[in-house]
Amino acid sequence: MIDAMAQAEVGDDVYKEDPTINRLEEIAADYLGKEAALFVTSGTQGNQVAVLTHCVNGDEVILEAESHLFYYEAGAMAALAGVQTRTLPGVRGAMQATDVEKAIRGVNIHYPRTKLICLENTHNRAGGAVLTPDQMKAVYDVASARHIPVHLDGARLYNAAVALGIDVRELTRYTDTVQVCLSKGLSAPVGSVLAGDRDFIEEARWWRKKLGGGMRQAGYLAAPGILALTEMTQRLQEDHDRAKQLEVGLQKLQIEVEPVETNIVLVNTHSLKLTAEQFISRLREKGVLANDFDQYVTRFTTHRHIEEQDITRVLEIMEGIVEETKALR
Amino acid sequence: MIDAMAQAEVGDDVYKEDPTINRLEEIAADYLGKEAALFVTSGTQGNQVAVLTHCVNGDEVILEAESHLFYYEAGAMAALAGVQTRTLPGVRGAMQATDVEKAIRGVNIHYPRTKLICLENTHNRAGGAVLTPDQMKAVYDVASARHIPVHLDGARLYNAAVALGIDVRELTRYTDTVQVCLSKGLSAPVGSVLAGDRDFIEEARWWRKKLGGGMRQAGYLAAPGILALTEMTQRLQEDHDRAKQLEVGLQKLQIEVEPVETNIVLVNTHSLKLTAEQFISRLREKGVLANDFDQYVTRFTTHRHIEEQDITRVLEIMEGIVEETKALR
Amino acid sequence: MIDAMAQAEVGDDVYKEDPTINRLEEIAADYLGKEAALFVTSGTQGNQVAVLTHCVNGDEVILEAESHLFYYEAGAMAALAGVQTRTLPGVRGAMQATDVEKAIRGVNIHYPRTKLICLENTHNRAGGAVLTPDQMKAVYDVASARHIPVHLDGARLYNAAVALGIDVRELTRYTDTVQVCLSKGLSAPVGSVLAGDRDFIEEARWWRKKLGGGMRQAGYLAAPGILALTEMTQRLQEDHDRAKQLEVGLQKLQIEVEPVETNIVLVNTHSLKLTAEQFISRLREKGVLANDFDQYVTRFTTHRHIEEQDITRVLEIMEGIVEETKALR
Amino acid sequence: MIDAMAQAEVGDDVYKEDPTINRLEEIAADYLGKEAALFVTSGTQGNQVAVLTHCVNGDEVILEAESHLFYYEAGAMAALAGVQTRTLPGVRGAMQATDVEKAIRGVNIHYPRTKLICLENTHNRAGGAVLTPDQMKAVYDVASARHIPVHLDGARLYNAAVALGIDVRELTRYTDTVQVCLSKGLSAPVGSVLAGDRDFIEEARWWRKKLGGGMRQAGYLAAPGILALTEMTQRLQEDHDRAKQLEVGLQKLQIEVEPVETNIVLVNTHSLKLTAEQFISRLREKGVLANDFDQYVTRFTTHRHIEEQDITRVLEIMEGIVEETKALR
Repeated sequence: MIDAMAQAEVGDDVYKEDPTINRLEEIAADYLGKEAALFVTSGTQGNQVAVLTHCVNGDEVILEAESHLFYYEAGAMAALAGVQTRTLPGVRGAMQATDVEKAIRGVNIHYPRTKLICLENTHNRAGGAVLTPDQMKAVYDVASARHIPVHLDGARLYNAAVALGIDVRELTRYTDTVQVCLSKGLSAPVGSVLAGDRDFIEEARWWRKKLGGGMRQAGYLAAPGILALTEMTQRLQEDHDRAKQLEVGLQKLQIEVEPVETNIVLVNTHSLKLTAEQFISRLREKGVLANDFDQYVTRFTTHRHIEEQDITRVLEIMEGIVEETKALR
Repeated sequence: MIDAMAQAEVGDDVYKEDPTINRLEEIAADYLGKEAALFVTSGTQGNQVAVLTHCVNGDEVILEAESHLFYYEAGAMAALAGVQTRTLPGVRGAMQATDVEKAIRGVNIHYPRTKLICLENTHNRAGGAVLTPDQMKAVYDVASARHIPVHLDGARLYNAAVALGIDVRELTRYTDTVQVCLSKGLSAPVGSVLAGDRDFIEEARWWRKKLGGGMRQAGYLAAPGILALTEMTQRLQEDHDRAKQLEVGLQKLQIEVEPVETNIVLVNTHSLKLTAEQFISRLREKGVLANDFDQYVTRFTTHRHIEEQDITRVLEIMEGIVEETKALR
Repeated sequence: MIDAMAQAEVGDDVYKEDPTINRLEEIAADYLGKEAALFVTSGTQGNQVAVLTHCVNGDEVILEAESHLFYYEAGAMAALAGVQTRTLPGVRGAMQATDVEKAIRGVNIHYPRTKLICLENTHNRAGGAVLTPDQMKAVYDVASARHIPVHLDGARLYNAAVALGIDVRELTRYTDTVQVCLSKGLSAPVGSVLAGDRDFIEEARWWRKKLGGGMRQAGYLAAPGILALTEMTQRLQEDHDRAKQLEVGLQKLQIEVEPVETNIVLVNTHSLKLTAEQFISRLREKGVLANDFDQYVTRFTTHRHIEEQDITRVLEIMEGIVEETKALR
Repeated sequence: MIDAMAQAEVGDDVYKEDPTINRLEEIAADYLGKEAALFVTSGTQGNQVAVLTHCVNGDEVILEAESHLFYYEAGAMAALAGVQTRTLPGVRGAMQATDVEKAIRGVNIHYPRTKLICLENTHNRAGGAVLTPDQMKAVYDVASARHIPVHLDGARLYNAAVALGIDVRELTRYTDTVQVCLSKGLSAPVGSVLAGDRDFIEEARWWRKKLGGGMRQAGYLAAPGILALTEMTQRLQEDHDRAKQLEVGLQKLQIEVEPVETNIVLVNTHSLKLTAEQFISRLREKGVLANDFDQYVTRFTTHRHIEEQDITRVLEIMEGIVEETKALR
């Protein structure tokens, strides 16, 4: 990837003259089954540009109560786009289509207009849970019947496709627009793509400019992005295998763990009387990195640099922590 | 009230020179137990000015999932103030203090800042349900410990106070700011007051100006507002009695009705296989007005012009509709 | 007017059921030569609702550098609507059509879209200066050729029409939407009307709701508003005569005064070495009210309660101030 | 630079764990004489983050009428931050301190608050014109006396410093915050830095996240950025020499050219009866690239890849165009 970056042919992308960016955008559009695509500097930027392009100030967006767009983007939807978030609780990240239908606003001067429905696949806070094509179709059908577009936060969409053993287009066909991260599991250093129809992407380009996401010689970032899309998607199975290995090991240690579907493992240390913060701190001393998700829930992710023996080692460290904790009681 | 309006002494309120407005604001501040108050043209304007004054763009506000501020103000919080709504499901309009505590954001670059918590008492969509001083105190304690202000949408606050048999100040002491409607049960033609500490109200005046709520000779509206606050609050008991009469009658007719606490009666006609729309349409033919709240839920409100015999008549009409409906099946 | 108010037939205007409001809106639409009209609580609210309805966040609006919308509405256009103000310096409040044409943005990813042009007639900070039909037509032709609507802040539009001796429709024909104040010279206690085509007004109603300008029994305010439009417009000539009388008297006293066209008189006391603040303070001692407009510029307005002898008296007071000031030097 | 990029040591910058980014930010802060700095993906992003951090919705910003922030950032200040732009006409990009002083708003409920003053040095649309330390100090003194911060759009600040023969700190001392581009003359592929005091930069980081400017392994972009700051600033003199060479040649050809101060050359082809569009189109046929700035004004910029003989060639091409044009008349 670094070689690709160093050898990239570049130009000024603000004037659409960077050939490597142009190639990445064509490949991304093709792979994602949309007319056009746009390179953005992060998943958050791709999501926010999508909201800004689909909606105007005063509109309402329906999305899952713990979705990244609502939970982890620092309130940007309201701050930048002036749109109200209508959150629905999901089951493992999936909103029920009937709930979505009920939440769509009718015509009434007291109501905002429902202008967008957002999905997330795989769902980060639901532990990398996968939305199936059927689940996505159910929401998409409800939305389409009301002429409301669906945006998919597909930061980890390839993880879903690999877990389901299908082409990503079997998922993106139930969306109007989609954002996919080139970093994370796909291993590019930086960047995401936003895909949709041609008019949408033209308008999105204008909003990206306002956010300062229009870059000059961005081709250096696009080159590894091309590799991410064309060569790295199949390797995600390894990450899933490693996550599964961790789940099985945790169950043996009788540590509570959420069902693992992809590359995310959520561990609950409540029964160990260890907060996530305490757990993470002990792990860090041993060189293991993780995020706190809730008072007692810790998130682990597997990626390209995590091998089978790393998981074995992590499990040994965890066993040690469990022993210590028991001893203290 | 019309006499009071016709005889009002007026001036230019934009320059704080309308003596009737000034008197209304002093009385409101005193009655609501706050340093200062501001006349606004509607409950929505009072609530929105409160949000705009408490928050800046990018902040987050915690509020009940079916609160008026979220549900019936056309998405204005996000549209005007750029704040994200964090909605929590309530039980009869009451959020649990523990849920509120959990929803307050910690310090994290991925999070917005929690800058305000909103309550609604009585709660419109919960059928005029009352929040008790204890319920309000529980949330207020959680908020105060984190230095987060509490705003109360008290459009129907006097209904709560009358139902509880207490002074409104027993409720407003658990809030930093409060909005109370002078119309609705209190019978003034137009207007609300927003109360809080002096600095807050000065800043609120500036936001009211931006919303175009600064008026010239507004005293004509303030005069009936003074009567609303000083003479009309105790008569709310009559509205509650009429609502109770309606509830008892509905139970006799075996029509499903939510427990009545104040002047709102929510009727569910699902078992009659009548949608709210159908029910309302048949009632309208007989001269009875009501609002649809949900597919099968209809809202009735009692007010100054509804007498005991009106309720008796409404119940007869409803009995007729029930009979008809049964006959059709 | 107060009688009209006291006898008004009212209803709930949020549901369009207030007959007096409905009548006012019909009359206003007819008089202003537009399909429909909407009652709002102030000129600022009418202007802001117009901007919110014409534009979406990210658009640009062209307007005169000292127009009320830019200068005196507390930054609301950007705060509420998220639109950028492109200000052009005018000559006595009038932008040149060629300057407007040049300021309209072309298609370029670095540019916002020009979505609205605002005019003001008469122009407050230009001393009540009148835009002629020709001046308005020139801008309107430029705008229409680019499919950009024109909004007129006609808070004092009837002053312009009376000064020109024409029907207001000779002016409003060169605008898409117009706001006219019922207070000020037209003497209603509160309120303005916004007029435009039917679809625009429907959408404007929705934005008025968000600003909290939707009121319940607003008919009490509409009744005097009807009188303002139907009976008070011709009396503006008296205000203009009084203003002219003041101008002539000031010239005799050799006090610098801007050419008077309507009911506003701008006085410059720089040569007297009196700041506006000092001038106003001395006048106030004698019971004369005025506003400061600039360091040395004071604004006087004439209205229904100012008679010929009042102006004579004001001139005597000013003469006294001049004498005093000279004596001090 | 490409080597530096390929060899960069990286980490996750969202968690401040990218060592190359950290080093770039330290160097930038030091060079610019501020406590801290933040890497952003573009000059627009740096400017917008600055505005978002200095202001809240409803504030007003004073800036030059053709400044990049107002003219070329697609209306983002109003769209994202909800702030009103108060533009003042400058002389070669410089606002007069007395004009700035007059434009600062006093306390009045009709006014927004002036919360920021923006300068641009060198000024793009003024043809790369330089603000001197004295000019900057004059505005800074006015601003500081009113406790209003000054932000400098220093996209081309090093061009100003080189032209003046001074350290950039002689300019940045008259600002509270400053944005400097690492691309353009400094030759890095992508990115800018925003510098200010520590608290400001912490808050700016949070707004950058909302705009989606928080990146993962951003170090690959920071590595060339470090070279840009440490090794490329002195070479700007060559760009200035080339621009001067072009100016002198144009004068010989009797083509109208704005006084050249740095690396930008503005050419006016009005007397040739050639629009900028026509001029640019003919140049493009011969392989010369330029931007249109106005109907008859074309902008040329010199940079690292433009040598003395390139300018000679460009002048020959222009001479040919002049001859052709004359022949056609």
